[in-house]
Amino acid sequence: MQWYFVAALLTVLTSSQGILTTLSQSNGKYKYDYATVPFLAEVFKLAVSSLLLWRECRISPSVRMTTDWKSVRLYPIPSIIYLIHNNVQFATLVYVDTSTYQIMGNLKIVTTGILFRLFLRRKLSNLQWIAIVLLAVGTTTSQVKGCGEVSCDSMFSAPIQGYLLGILSACMSALAGVYTEFLMKKNNDSLYWQNVQLYTFGVIFNIARLLFDDFRGGFENGPWWQRLFNGYNLTTWLVVLNLGSTGLLVSWLMKYADNIVKVYSTSMAMLLTMVLSVYLFTFKPTLQLFLGIIICMMSLHMYFAPPSMLIDLPLPVKATTESLKEVSVERKSDS
Amino acid sequence: MQWYFVAALLTVLTSSQGILTTLSQSNGKYKYDYATVPFLAEVFKLAVSSLLLWRECRISPSVRMTTDWKSVRLYPIPSIIYLIHNNVQFATLVYVDTSTYQIMGNLKIVTTGILFRLFLRRKLSNLQWIAIVLLAVGTTTSQVKGCGEVSCDSMFSAPIQGYLLGILSACMSALAGVYTEFLMKKNNDSLYWQNVQLYTFGVIFNIARLLFDDFRGGFENGPWWQRLFNGYNLTTWLVVLNLGSTGLLVSWLMKYADNIVKVYSTSMAMLLTMVLSVYLFTFKPTLQLFLGIIICMMSLHMYFAPPSMLIDLPLPVKATTESLKEVSVERKSDS
Repeated sequence: MQWYFVAALLTVLTSSQGILTTLSQSNGKYKYDYATVPFLAEVFKLAVSSLLLWRECRISPSVRMTTDWKSVRLYPIPSIIYLIHNNVQFATLVYVDTSTYQIMGNLKIVTTGILFRLFLRRKLSNLQWIAIVLLAVGTTTSQVKGCGEVSCDSMFSAPIQGYLLGILSACMSALAGVYTEFLMKKNNDSLYWQNVQLYTFGVIFNIARLLFDDFRGGFENGPWWQRLFNGYNLTTWLVVLNLGSTGLLVSWLMKYADNIVKVYSTSMAMLLTMVLSVYLFTFKPTLQLFLGIIICMMSLHMYFAPPSMLIDLPLPVKATTESLKEVSVERKSDS
Repeated sequence: MQWYFVAALLTVLTSSQGILTTLSQSNGKYKYDYATVPFLAEVFKLAVSSLLLWRECRISPSVRMTTDWKSVRLYPIPSIIYLIHNNVQFATLVYVDTSTYQIMGNLKIVTTGILFRLFLRRKLSNLQWIAIVLLAVGTTTSQVKGCGEVSCDSMFSAPIQGYLLGILSACMSALAGVYTEFLMKKNNDSLYWQNVQLYTFGVIFNIARLLFDDFRGGFENGPWWQRLFNGYNLTTWLVVLNLGSTGLLVSWLMKYADNIVKVYSTSMAMLLTMVLSVYLFTFKPTLQLFLGIIICMMSLHMYFAPPSMLIDLPLPVKATTESLKEVSVERKSDS
């Protein structure tokens, strides 16, 4: 399977996630407990991965699986990072409003690039750095509040703690991604075995979270397992299925592609959601959405196009042979 | 003189032009006839160029000057294009409001690139095209109406004629620039001699315009030469001086650099004006201005940085000699 096919599928599914979530609401409210959705998605991912691992083991008996505790103990870490991230996110929202939080969320594109460089020691060209910054600028542009919209006085006026926590949140989010990539690539273990470990801890942490919420609420609504499917309808199940599938695709990308590919996928999904919202909901298209899309498309091209396509100046016809020689030298130096 | 020094000076002067023009107003109104400013600027440019030409002739008797009618007759053409452009601009403003017109004005960055390629047959790399589009996107982003601002319902709602005329206006503006570059570069004539021809026709066309306005107004305020300096103060004179100087710098750039350099200078000047307005006037800094500045800076770097700086992946230390060899091959192919 080609990575760009998986990335495109991830874009489409991530984009439908936002739309399905909106559609699953009744009069702007959830009739079900939204916290149960990630839990069921983890269960779905664990089930699918277990099934695929079982099939893989049946086909070839030599499936690579490191079962040693020294390796297994690394798998709860992404769940722990996400747990901390959730709390940082919660703390940030005490200081800033949701739209400022959304704008700051684009910072994770840049922090992912930085941690990708620092922790995974992956080299990026100057142009790829520019492309990453432009991707963050492009997604931010598309989110700029249009004229006529209210509640914009709060922009840049939150207390400094809000911005610092926003930066911390972007770093945590990037760290989770970069750490998962490290985990998936550190050995040649079967992807399905790695997934089973990852999602087993995912299920455990989600149960812990649901229990914690119940304790904090004094079991007012009864224990979570008694109201697990309360208010679920077909759309809610689609949300679960969709969230689970995007998780599996991200896992695949972490092993066979990288974090930057994932960041491009999810950023493009955000823009796609906005475009689809114009048709599906009462979302007014803005000039800034149009500009944001152009910027992100340019960034995508700059990051992924072969350098020889971007820079080779078209040479006059008479110099064809010479130019061909030069192109081949350049290609060698890029790979 | 280096082109980037001239370009930087042009940026600063163009930027002060907007600020001086605002400062020259009293209570938001011009106390003088603004149409006299371009006329006096043309006179200033003609005087300076004549003086420099005279000095040049005194120093070396072999100054290149083509005085043949076949060459001289090409020099009124820029003035004619500007005249048509003014009328197209006027017609456009019948259909669209000034802020939409301003937004569409950024199209001239892209049309300049296209005409530069088509008429002057100058090759641009794929990356340089991306940079040009991003420059236009960046300047547009900085002009996106912020939240709370009124009169934004008209965006994208003007009649189609308005947009077509806007595109025509962008093409005329680009054509004037590209034609002037062709004129300045078509032979090795002295820059000052070329300027003298250009500005002589400029002065003539400006006189014609002032006369035409007087005729249309039925000489209500008397002929233009009687009220030439009416309401002029020091700032007005600075506006004239500034406009004249930017004209001379543009002329220099057309001969020794090119239209794209000019487009970058004036776009950066637009952003600089907005930043200065934050300090000088009651202009509120917006997120979109900040994003626009980042986009334009990235575009500038992408267009002008040597390709080897943008794309060469940092190579491991042991391959230093090899990488040096490759860099030099690439440099040769770029020049």
